[in-house]
Amino acid sequence: MTTIANTPAPPYYAVIFTSIRTDADQGYADMAARMVELAARQPGFLGMESVRQEVGITVSYWKDLESIRAWKANAEHLQAQQLGRSTWYSAFKTRICKVERDYRL
Amino acid sequence: MTTIANTPAPPYYAVIFTSIRTDADQGYADMAARMVELAARQPGFLGMESVRQEVGITVSYWKDLESIRAWKANAEHLQAQQLGRSTWYSAFKTRICKVERDYRL
Repeated sequence: MTTIANTPAPPYYAVIFTSIRTDADQGYADMAARMVELAARQPGFLGMESVRQEVGITVSYWKDLESIRAWKANAEHLQAQQLGRSTWYSAFKTRICKVERDYRL
Repeated sequence: MTTIANTPAPPYYAVIFTSIRTDADQGYADMAARMVELAARQPGFLGMESVRQEVGITVSYWKDLESIRAWKANAEHLQAQQLGRSTWYSAFKTRICKVERDYRL
């Protein structure tokens, strides 16, 4: 279950991944779980928040752009990205952002 | 229903609002719908994506920080923010981000 990520004081980076799934299953849930596990072990990973209804929003938080680049280039992640494009998503958008400020309840 | 926001080429800004609801209803759904409607009419509004399960993630997109400041200070929105803090949310985190890059399927 997702919760509110306990990120450090800004600045840090966020990757907002908004997606619409196809009807194709073909191992999606297993791969998604594996990617969460793998991301959490990457250098510079700060946390993740993920919610899905018809549309899914997954936000992962990272120390810097270099950490994001390294995660994007991870071999197992590259394979998942390829299957995402070919099979699991009918549309998605990825936004790379610098978190400049935050506040909370 | 939410979809993938059709935002322009970066740079622009994103406000990531991650929240956990209390059990209190007290007009929440009406106010949430009203805030979406009102935000969409603000200068500099570029789009919004919103998904809720146990946790909710709402991302709104804005032209610049000035647009975000003006929306935060909107009178009706201030009232909603106050009710959010006192009644509707047990926890939330708001992150103000500069979108530096994006790509899509």
